[in-house]
Amino acid sequence: MKSFASDNTAGAHPRILNALARANEGHAAPYGNDPFTAQAQECFRRIFGEETHVFPVFAGTAANVLALRGALKPWQAVVCSDVAHINVDETGAPEAMGGMKLVALPSKNGKLTAACLEPAFEQIGVVHHAQPGVVSITQVTEYGTVYTPDEVRAIADAVHGRGLLLHMDGARIANAAAALGLTLRELTRDAGVDVLTFGGTKNGLFFGDAVVVFDERLAEGYAYLRKQTGQLCSKMRFISAQFVELLKDGLWLENARHANAMASVLAQGLSGIDAVSITRPVQANAVFACLPARGVAALQREYLFNVWDAATGEVRLMTSFATTEDEVAEFVQAVRAAC
Amino acid sequence: MKSFASDNTAGAHPRILNALARANEGHAAPYGNDPFTAQAQECFRRIFGEETHVFPVFAGTAANVLALRGALKPWQAVVCSDVAHINVDETGAPEAMGGMKLVALPSKNGKLTAACLEPAFEQIGVVHHAQPGVVSITQVTEYGTVYTPDEVRAIADAVHGRGLLLHMDGARIANAAAALGLTLRELTRDAGVDVLTFGGTKNGLFFGDAVVVFDERLAEGYAYLRKQTGQLCSKMRFISAQFVELLKDGLWLENARHANAMASVLAQGLSGIDAVSITRPVQANAVFACLPARGVAALQREYLFNVWDAATGEVRLMTSFATTEDEVAEFVQAVRAAC
Amino acid sequence: MKSFASDNTAGAHPRILNALARANEGHAAPYGNDPFTAQAQECFRRIFGEETHVFPVFAGTAANVLALRGALKPWQAVVCSDVAHINVDETGAPEAMGGMKLVALPSKNGKLTAACLEPAFEQIGVVHHAQPGVVSITQVTEYGTVYTPDEVRAIADAVHGRGLLLHMDGARIANAAAALGLTLRELTRDAGVDVLTFGGTKNGLFFGDAVVVFDERLAEGYAYLRKQTGQLCSKMRFISAQFVELLKDGLWLENARHANAMASVLAQGLSGIDAVSITRPVQANAVFACLPARGVAALQREYLFNVWDAATGEVRLMTSFATTEDEVAEFVQAVRAAC
Amino acid sequence: MKSFASDNTAGAHPRILNALARANEGHAAPYGNDPFTAQAQECFRRIFGEETHVFPVFAGTAANVLALRGALKPWQAVVCSDVAHINVDETGAPEAMGGMKLVALPSKNGKLTAACLEPAFEQIGVVHHAQPGVVSITQVTEYGTVYTPDEVRAIADAVHGRGLLLHMDGARIANAAAALGLTLRELTRDAGVDVLTFGGTKNGLFFGDAVVVFDERLAEGYAYLRKQTGQLCSKMRFISAQFVELLKDGLWLENARHANAMASVLAQGLSGIDAVSITRPVQANAVFACLPARGVAALQREYLFNVWDAATGEVRLMTSFATTEDEVAEFVQAVRAAC
Repeated sequence: MKSFASDNTAGAHPRILNALARANEGHAAPYGNDPFTAQAQECFRRIFGEETHVFPVFAGTAANVLALRGALKPWQAVVCSDVAHINVDETGAPEAMGGMKLVALPSKNGKLTAACLEPAFEQIGVVHHAQPGVVSITQVTEYGTVYTPDEVRAIADAVHGRGLLLHMDGARIANAAAALGLTLRELTRDAGVDVLTFGGTKNGLFFGDAVVVFDERLAEGYAYLRKQTGQLCSKMRFISAQFVELLKDGLWLENARHANAMASVLAQGLSGIDAVSITRPVQANAVFACLPARGVAALQREYLFNVWDAATGEVRLMTSFATTEDEVAEFVQAVRAAC
Repeated sequence: MKSFASDNTAGAHPRILNALARANEGHAAPYGNDPFTAQAQECFRRIFGEETHVFPVFAGTAANVLALRGALKPWQAVVCSDVAHINVDETGAPEAMGGMKLVALPSKNGKLTAACLEPAFEQIGVVHHAQPGVVSITQVTEYGTVYTPDEVRAIADAVHGRGLLLHMDGARIANAAAALGLTLRELTRDAGVDVLTFGGTKNGLFFGDAVVVFDERLAEGYAYLRKQTGQLCSKMRFISAQFVELLKDGLWLENARHANAMASVLAQGLSGIDAVSITRPVQANAVFACLPARGVAALQREYLFNVWDAATGEVRLMTSFATTEDEVAEFVQAVRAAC
Repeated sequence: MKSFASDNTAGAHPRILNALARANEGHAAPYGNDPFTAQAQECFRRIFGEETHVFPVFAGTAANVLALRGALKPWQAVVCSDVAHINVDETGAPEAMGGMKLVALPSKNGKLTAACLEPAFEQIGVVHHAQPGVVSITQVTEYGTVYTPDEVRAIADAVHGRGLLLHMDGARIANAAAALGLTLRELTRDAGVDVLTFGGTKNGLFFGDAVVVFDERLAEGYAYLRKQTGQLCSKMRFISAQFVELLKDGLWLENARHANAMASVLAQGLSGIDAVSITRPVQANAVFACLPARGVAALQREYLFNVWDAATGEVRLMTSFATTEDEVAEFVQAVRAAC
Repeated sequence: MKSFASDNTAGAHPRILNALARANEGHAAPYGNDPFTAQAQECFRRIFGEETHVFPVFAGTAANVLALRGALKPWQAVVCSDVAHINVDETGAPEAMGGMKLVALPSKNGKLTAACLEPAFEQIGVVHHAQPGVVSITQVTEYGTVYTPDEVRAIADAVHGRGLLLHMDGARIANAAAALGLTLRELTRDAGVDVLTFGGTKNGLFFGDAVVVFDERLAEGYAYLRKQTGQLCSKMRFISAQFVELLKDGLWLENARHANAMASVLAQGLSGIDAVSITRPVQANAVFACLPARGVAALQREYLFNVWDAATGEVRLMTSFATTEDEVAEFVQAVRAAC
């Protein structure tokens, strides 16, 4: 199979497989009371600082729901962009599992700004309107763009100034760090993020994401909520061991850098094709482009990728740690041939 | 670590690790549109018959919630035993994720009977009382006992006679089949079960359970509900490949038989110790026993296991595919020494 | 107090008070098993036809949630306009009480069309996207405009053609019927509405709305859902007796006609003032208009009414059965003075 | 109709009707921004002390759900008696509307004690078990018994000692105060109750209950939750005016005393009949008794009342402010004749 569909069509990195195999020795206490989970916690703390509370989970949709449930009061709503994964790609999970309303605001290339949030802030205190409790932004965004720390900080300041909390859906946070050449902490905690969904699956794990909480007071309920949300892995060592391998010496960054580099090569290749136009800034591991309809049809006979907007013919092409330069070159060739 | 705490303190069977490694080649379509998932579906259909709809998921608590959500109408409740996992060991997940009320009824050694259900049935049509929609039974039960197909059938008949559906939490369904020397189908679909939670994690997988639906009409919503419940694995091939290995040639049965045999040996060993009394019928891979308090305390310095009832000193000892005869013998020796 | 804030700043019609007083004699069976409720059912059936199932409730927000919960399958979402009351004025009640996602679509003057719905229909069958189950339209819309039966029918055909159901939030359905000179049935059941929220409160009751279900199969669960949603009135006769009085001989229409007429007079008055522009078609009992900011400020010292859009200075002015011609004339005079 | 079925088969007290009629003059600001609601707040504060936050609502089931939602953190559960109204008579509303698990404990004549709560407290901190957040007791209990302030205080101390909150379902709190000869405050706030459901409907209103919050920090969210729970009455003056009349000069106590006295007379009358046995202490306005089956059948041809336990023949007989001595005498006569 040839795929630019998503960073989740890749398998797991070979080092991750080896780590899993090593973790599969003997008994281990379940539910996170095992040495691998302790190590994983330690890895996260080295990255994000003391008083970081880490809750490894199976997958991203539930991680987002969990992150949000723990940060919201029961009457509060989530403010997010109109194209946020939580809003359009989770089949109503936040509403169904958490009873929370999402207030979706217009965004540009997937990004919100502090100014964008004003219409939501104006509802504060009006009893008939959903009360914003958390603002959620996605890093890398659903359109492959990256918030700078200053942009995150500006949002965080606006959010905190209203007494709200800031959640970051970091399904591709590693790609953002690689793109900006900054530490994970600089992009998140130091920029004012209160709760982070940390993506592992798309960065080379078999499965595994984590909810990372930076505020001691917030952390209280997450252990219970994780179980209640169906995300407490009984054989937790198998998530934790993957995270240890990913985080202990920079595999996360190596994987992310490679994925981003492949997107860059892909964008460069495509930009040389007349019939193709790149539609969004290529800042991480996604390339959005408009292709002629018959080109799309021809390519989809051989390649897996997604049409993002049927009306405009915009497609999304994702690269991953496993994408090779040859694959990219071959695909660019195929696009050229098809268009 | 030495553990009789649960069948989830074991790792994964070596064959499962190999299967996972083999599945980790190249790209695969995400979300179940991959060949491993097709194979897994086929394995389940060979076992349970045509028109079996299989929804692999990450883990058991969420599998139960998903199974129940898909079988309930929005105003209906679940009837279960007072000791059911869904009632006491899921931190309120069914209520929180599905808004469903659980009506818990007294049980004996974890088992319900058709007669037990009458008080719940009497509420049918009374507008002030939660309306039973699904009856849920656990196989193997939380006390390690096993329903015979006749017992399941009697419950199913009562349930269907009222227009309700029957769910089986089969976190240890393999152990039940091994215990009874019957096929998985005889214990479930043929005995009247409408929706089954099929346990993989406790039977030798790294992670992975499945919701198995036997009724075409019911199946409609599960694909959406799985995603909405945070249980749609993006790299689904890694659950499916494990299931294929477990199911294709009887590894599931081998694992379950071994676990049961070890429990039997353990029970026999313990029954020869004066200070220890076996408290529940030992029918699968669990042994419940009362030990003197100082014996429990001494043993817990070396072994991981759970006190089930602090008042009576009843403990639960679980065996798994990975438990060895030596471990059992050594533990029995330790119990003898401690008591 | 002088108010054009809402049709709920009015009290109850004197005939309704008398009906309530008459109903307050002796004991009556609770929860709707009383003769007043039987009469109310009969009134609704005369209006809407046989096989109409009526569930009187306390109030509108909960009526909408109840109507939607009974029409949705557990994994389905509601499609509505971006300005729908359920979307913006219910503090997240549909999400919180029913776990349902609302998919909000752009509208014009509060109205959707069949064409508007296409983006939602395109999600059908895509497992990652909320699955539309019900389309909800508001009649009279939140901008005071009225759907014609043909417009409703076009939407209903599109909705039914996709296997979905059509809900109408008829908080002001009486005003729509009065505006169009049609029967309530022509606007609803005959135009393809499956479930109706029938507004009583805004049309002269002390309190009381009703969920009206036109499909026998749908009706099954509503009795349970009404109780579960906290909307089963124990002293139900007091809602029912009000509805009987409202419906038995046309008080509902008289009230609605008067309210509409007052809005018409008001619009005419305002349109003669240079500084004021009417911003929406005045079709029922609402007038939307832009006033100079200082005019608004001056008027609000004496009158209760709501600014709908602070950015444009658009205000909403509502009339009711209780609004008098003198009140309107005096208000127009005040506007003229203030602007 | 002759009824001892419930205190909600009575209508409203004539003074309440008059108050409603008086409140029905002119416009009033909706949603509680009216003078009647200000007066009602003042009445409640005179009774319960400063810093009492009052949220009038339509009805009791929703009032309980609202009271509990505001006091629970999202991962917490409610501990209540096995016969609690919230557990058995609300069709799963707490679970459906609030996602909350109820942990039901055995009780005696409807009453819990601090000792009863221990099994629930033992779950605190265990991640697999629902975490108690609120203990809910009912006053007057579902079996017509009354908690003394000392009993409430003992429970409150145990509850607060664990960091939990105490809710009282006071659907018949007036009857309890009348029974004990104490103030409403002595039974509630002064005894350690944090959140109270204050019943109006059963004490002579047309409709109307209230959530009364004694803790400033808790109060924050209730205004939003009330709307979100479908309990914000648009024409709020009509609930508030009833409460003012009920509370301003002791009508609540007069009504409750009368109801209790009628139950006392009824119990005395029944206790003189050989075939009848009183089964629960008669402390407020309920009489529970066992009657011969044929007696029940005969009486139900003429009287409305409920069989509470079909197995034992136990029936529940409720009196209200509207029950007359003649009605009681006639009923006792009828019982004597029927048995």
